[in-house]
Amino acid sequence: MHRVVIIGGGFAGLNAAQLLKHADAEVTLIDKRNFHLFQPLLYQVATGALSPGEIAAPLRYVLNRQKNTRVLLGEVSDLDAGEVVLKDGSRVPYDTLIVATGATHHYFGHPEWATLAPGLKSVEDATEIRTRILLAFERAEKETDPAERQANLTFVVVGGGPTGVELAGALGEISRDTLKKDFRHINPADAKIFLIEGEPRLLPSYPPKLSKSAEESLTKLGVQTRNSSRVTEIDKDGVTVKTGDKTNPIRTRTVLWAAGVQASPLGKLLESKAGAKLDKSGRVLVEPDLSIAGRPEILVVGDLAAVPKVPGVAPAAIQQGRYAAKLVIARLRNEKTKPFHYHDKGSLATIGRNQAVAEIGSFQFSGILAWLAWLFIHLLYIVGFQNRALIALQWAFGYLTYNRGARLITGQYKT
Amino acid sequence: MHRVVIIGGGFAGLNAAQLLKHADAEVTLIDKRNFHLFQPLLYQVATGALSPGEIAAPLRYVLNRQKNTRVLLGEVSDLDAGEVVLKDGSRVPYDTLIVATGATHHYFGHPEWATLAPGLKSVEDATEIRTRILLAFERAEKETDPAERQANLTFVVVGGGPTGVELAGALGEISRDTLKKDFRHINPADAKIFLIEGEPRLLPSYPPKLSKSAEESLTKLGVQTRNSSRVTEIDKDGVTVKTGDKTNPIRTRTVLWAAGVQASPLGKLLESKAGAKLDKSGRVLVEPDLSIAGRPEILVVGDLAAVPKVPGVAPAAIQQGRYAAKLVIARLRNEKTKPFHYHDKGSLATIGRNQAVAEIGSFQFSGILAWLAWLFIHLLYIVGFQNRALIALQWAFGYLTYNRGARLITGQYKT
Repeated sequence: MHRVVIIGGGFAGLNAAQLLKHADAEVTLIDKRNFHLFQPLLYQVATGALSPGEIAAPLRYVLNRQKNTRVLLGEVSDLDAGEVVLKDGSRVPYDTLIVATGATHHYFGHPEWATLAPGLKSVEDATEIRTRILLAFERAEKETDPAERQANLTFVVVGGGPTGVELAGALGEISRDTLKKDFRHINPADAKIFLIEGEPRLLPSYPPKLSKSAEESLTKLGVQTRNSSRVTEIDKDGVTVKTGDKTNPIRTRTVLWAAGVQASPLGKLLESKAGAKLDKSGRVLVEPDLSIAGRPEILVVGDLAAVPKVPGVAPAAIQQGRYAAKLVIARLRNEKTKPFHYHDKGSLATIGRNQAVAEIGSFQFSGILAWLAWLFIHLLYIVGFQNRALIALQWAFGYLTYNRGARLITGQYKT
Repeated sequence: MHRVVIIGGGFAGLNAAQLLKHADAEVTLIDKRNFHLFQPLLYQVATGALSPGEIAAPLRYVLNRQKNTRVLLGEVSDLDAGEVVLKDGSRVPYDTLIVATGATHHYFGHPEWATLAPGLKSVEDATEIRTRILLAFERAEKETDPAERQANLTFVVVGGGPTGVELAGALGEISRDTLKKDFRHINPADAKIFLIEGEPRLLPSYPPKLSKSAEESLTKLGVQTRNSSRVTEIDKDGVTVKTGDKTNPIRTRTVLWAAGVQASPLGKLLESKAGAKLDKSGRVLVEPDLSIAGRPEILVVGDLAAVPKVPGVAPAAIQQGRYAAKLVIARLRNEKTKPFHYHDKGSLATIGRNQAVAEIGSFQFSGILAWLAWLFIHLLYIVGFQNRALIALQWAFGYLTYNRGARLITGQYKT
């Protein structure tokens, strides 16, 4: 039996596995986490609107009726001839390898910023960011020094892509609505939220019209945008922002990182062990059929793959994962295959209550219609009916009450 | 204005604060966590049925409409004349002090067992236990040595009170139902679950008839009970259980602690700073009005208070918290007060699907009726309408699908 090994249970890997359900193949899905994470909603965990369990689905559960598929919890440490080597030393042989390990943050040569400005990739990142945001308000409430109080009430989001825009918007809502009546000594609406973007406009991959709408909506929520700007320094007292020739320090206790994408370390492994070529972000350059040049049995899908004109978004990962599965099936049947073709379904980003921007086909729109489209599409794509119902319910409550029920300060912290 | 300071936002402290809503007093609620935790359902977080956010309510949100009340995130480090001193050095003056800091685990003189056998008091405990349980199955799936595989498939719960019974029952369900189809190399139903209780029967504080029902239901779920037994050793290879003169080793990789209660360290502080007397568990002996002898302005409520014939359960804590608030109000009005009287509403413990034991008034019953009573009462007492709806929804899904949607392996772990 043909053995397909998939590394990574994100959008690309999970979709590949699911489409191989009826394939004449033994499928092994390897992931270092035991769950699939619906990353587009991770910022809602970071801002206390949802709980981690609600945007995650156990991989074993999702695939448990798929008789030809097994799930392995493990981290890949090496690739050998026709075998994947795991950290625990075990080896998993393959005939076809699908690598879908995605990407992580990139601090532009400043790895020391990682602890000062956490990024948002894992559930642990999200609960850490949640704790930092909520603790900042708590410290402000107790602080008597006005400058230090304002530093605690200042939030800097680095990166004006969809994640940065959604995080900044959520921070605007938290300070203006959610926490409105919660404190006695501070007014949470005094919070200053800065959104720093290197390009001349937010959401640079979106049409200019939508960038403008997003900027206007964010401004209404109290977010101050700094376009054509970059962060040159981060330390425990704040960040230094450079706009043109001007350098401005911002005193803050909370910096969140939503910029820079770096491919997973599997890219480098594919370079050294399978002769793959990488682009400057470490992504793997692939052939039109998503395989590595000269290694047709190794396919790279999702954010780890560098495919011209294909953005690093969930729909692209899903399409690539499904393409890889179909390719495997076609090869097993000795059928011809077409190159991968990305079908751009559009772009969506939510800013806050009733506010989002959308590009679907040739339609560009913003406001409540875009917001409803965002709600609908996200509910549609989340894995599992149970999560769908839970999230819909929380959103309904949140909409009616302005509350965010999952705002827990957890983990290690000092009061 | 009379200043009431409440330490602890559990059942006792939160109920005291809420009843002081219309009191002619300034109320300060101090807690080291920013949320109230519905502890009776914590075992459901530990076993992947619910998410932490669903059994927690932000204290600020719960109290935000209560104008005379403020919430302080902080940990108490000392008590001074008429002042509570926090770790950050700030001081909170009081006229009446209500101490409601509860209890924690007690390892019977073996503090080194704490990391080997985590107890279940905080959300961090619950997610840690969840990770340990799920990882044990993952390791078993990969293990080739039969003895080591069985060690991973063996779970020991120490303590046969309500928490231990509920944990063991949930482990039975996880291995028999939830994970049924999830693995390819192991049969999760091969899991051995031991429940160790020092007294001759489980649930020693319940009527003997219900102990028997609980034991029977647990046996059906595959749980092996060891009554009149105690754990004499725990190390990384397992536990040693002593029953009478016999000593039996159990090889296991997962030991959960549900025995031994020790009062919070505030008890000792009250002893040294307010002349309180403590019982052998460190609980504070109180006067009939829950005050400390000779210190009428200091009230102790909830699990920290040693009140004859009052068990350490949520309803008792709620009643004591409410009593303390009424006492404060009566004193402010110069009205006479009656001693605290515990109204025993009964006992409930769930074992699994359709299985619970209940004593309500003079009725003792078990089975599906007790289970429905358990569901209903827990939904009734949980704080917040939103949490109630979320939990009801998850329970409905869990009942229909046998799934536990929140089974995430999180935090630090080795694959």
